[in-house]
Amino acid sequence: MAFSERVARLKSSLIREILAAAQRPEVMSFAGGLPAEPMLPKVEWSEMPASMGQYGMSEGEPALREAIAAEARALGVPCEASQVLIVSGSQQTLDLASKLFIDPGTEVLLEAPTYLAALQAFQLFGADCIGVPQEADGPELGALRQRLERHKPAFAYLIPTFQNPSGTRYSEAKRDAVAALLDEFGVTLIEDEPYRELVFDDGQATPIVSRLKQASWIYTGTVSKTLLPGLRVGYLIATPDLFPYLLRLKQSADLHTNRVGQWQALQWLGSEQYRGHLAELRDFYRIRRDAMQASLLEHFIDLADWETPQGGLFFWLTLKQPLDTRTLLGEALEQKVAFMPGEPFFIEPDQHPGHLRLNFSHVAPERLGEGLKRLAGVIRQAQAGAAA
Amino acid sequence: MAFSERVARLKSSLIREILAAAQRPEVMSFAGGLPAEPMLPKVEWSEMPASMGQYGMSEGEPALREAIAAEARALGVPCEASQVLIVSGSQQTLDLASKLFIDPGTEVLLEAPTYLAALQAFQLFGADCIGVPQEADGPELGALRQRLERHKPAFAYLIPTFQNPSGTRYSEAKRDAVAALLDEFGVTLIEDEPYRELVFDDGQATPIVSRLKQASWIYTGTVSKTLLPGLRVGYLIATPDLFPYLLRLKQSADLHTNRVGQWQALQWLGSEQYRGHLAELRDFYRIRRDAMQASLLEHFIDLADWETPQGGLFFWLTLKQPLDTRTLLGEALEQKVAFMPGEPFFIEPDQHPGHLRLNFSHVAPERLGEGLKRLAGVIRQAQAGAAA
Repeated sequence: MAFSERVARLKSSLIREILAAAQRPEVMSFAGGLPAEPMLPKVEWSEMPASMGQYGMSEGEPALREAIAAEARALGVPCEASQVLIVSGSQQTLDLASKLFIDPGTEVLLEAPTYLAALQAFQLFGADCIGVPQEADGPELGALRQRLERHKPAFAYLIPTFQNPSGTRYSEAKRDAVAALLDEFGVTLIEDEPYRELVFDDGQATPIVSRLKQASWIYTGTVSKTLLPGLRVGYLIATPDLFPYLLRLKQSADLHTNRVGQWQALQWLGSEQYRGHLAELRDFYRIRRDAMQASLLEHFIDLADWETPQGGLFFWLTLKQPLDTRTLLGEALEQKVAFMPGEPFFIEPDQHPGHLRLNFSHVAPERLGEGLKRLAGVIRQAQAGAAA
Repeated sequence: MAFSERVARLKSSLIREILAAAQRPEVMSFAGGLPAEPMLPKVEWSEMPASMGQYGMSEGEPALREAIAAEARALGVPCEASQVLIVSGSQQTLDLASKLFIDPGTEVLLEAPTYLAALQAFQLFGADCIGVPQEADGPELGALRQRLERHKPAFAYLIPTFQNPSGTRYSEAKRDAVAALLDEFGVTLIEDEPYRELVFDDGQATPIVSRLKQASWIYTGTVSKTLLPGLRVGYLIATPDLFPYLLRLKQSADLHTNRVGQWQALQWLGSEQYRGHLAELRDFYRIRRDAMQASLLEHFIDLADWETPQGGLFFWLTLKQPLDTRTLLGEALEQKVAFMPGEPFFIEPDQHPGHLRLNFSHVAPERLGEGLKRLAGVIRQAQAGAAA
């Protein structure tokens, strides 16, 4: 069978295998990024007009595009509804952006670590990925400048607010500095913000795209983390030089995003009910975040270092004695606990051993301690084995 | 701005422009392939479980995959649920198949004419498209053999049942002959069947994939033509050598298809209610088909030749005096009537002037005569101008 060249770049299904194993009811899973089931809001469908069953526009529903543009403007993003494209979940934005920009060998700039499904999407299209190390408040600026001086990336892909996996939130100063650098070198920014609304501690920062003066940009968001991921409704907002191409690529990918999900999202966006739901969601997740922090202090204080995430869905642990955490998976699943190894979040996994991503939204606080204790045991055993 | 090489292959938005113009309420449109609004079934949502709001599996809902496999087996397609992938509408199958098979320069085999969104999707990925002329009962077999002897296509993409645009239904003999040729040359078949259920006259024929003995295949269908296109739920069934790659490409494209649409589709597939709805749909469209046939006989008998379609949504007219029908669009829209020019359905549009695709599902029969009369007038005027 003669497949395309890109099929050779399709990554192994390690992640899907972890997630599949993690779905066994007896497994306590810190692996995925799933919203907590009890916090999925109850939705009503009885008012949906029959016309939502018909074919729709590739751009998306006009009223939803207006609502998203209004929300973005309130965040400081200068845009009109005509710049909003409704997509079938944020993952599709990565596919469309890959198609727009990436030929085999095209350079793209990513955080190290970065969201692994983005890394895989870009690599599938043949991107030559260049990483910028992250600090607690955003990228190492010297390294970013050096990369921009030496390379010609088609775009920079950044997740500045509660990054998946690291939980990092860029400081105001770094947001300004990154924007200035991208403007200086004329590099397009793709800013991915699925977690912006999941903020547990004080502090807000406007998107980096709102700070750009010249560079083109795509700003991307979703209702998956705050409403219902099963709707598969996300959006991108793009500068007018990029929008027409993204629209045609969207049409070629799947004609348009399902309208029933778009209609449901529209019932929530900007509503009092949605504001109330978001407030509840933050309270609920803050409690889970705090519970995991307490439990980590109990079981991992001698094993790992971490920052307490101020938002998002993940703790990012750095082992004091690094080892390839992928080798822990088998024993962890034996012990009925699942986690996400940190290595695949890096462009060169083998050079970055010793991180674990732990989701805190899914496991109930009362079961948390038991799961983390088991996981710590698996790590201790492996480190003892390595030392022996 | 440095875009990917493929962006240069993004086709002009002629079709989108026609469809946009055709949506103006004062325009009578024979252009699209939209189901008739009155035939969109009323759907119920009150029983949908809350879990449909959560993330789902990239493969699709297990129960829906089972139901689709059972339907396909009843049609003669040998398959298991494990071979079924739920996609975000049939268009996505074209995108996934392109990613699986097509590098720049990869040869693919298509009917001439073929579905233009498929042609555009394959060309976007850089396919070198090879056409096989169609006759009233399917492809010219000599031409097909010759193409297979001279070329090494990665796949053949065929729409054997009420093809869009030509309305052709392959005969039993040609289905057998095509299957034998693809087996002989070891060429993968992609068989696209959106219109199978929209059959108005007697006669059924099993899919070509059910006649293959060796070649790999992808069989693709959708609920868009029989239930609700706004759900964006389609499916593909693939041989086990292809399935794992298509699944990973699906995951990279949009994680999974929206679950609310999948749940709704499952309520219908295989049910008594669905059988009743399909019977009503066939009666309704048969009346519209017959009304258009009568009206064409009145207004187009001296202008064009055509076969009466036995299913699907389209008449395919061949002008007795060929001219580039794209040049008629402006005046037609002036006259508030929209149609789809035939040229873009061919690999080399300029070499195939003189066809029109007319949809009969959308315009109410009582308005039909007026619209076709106006369109005939536009053609007569252009031909008189060309003769002068």
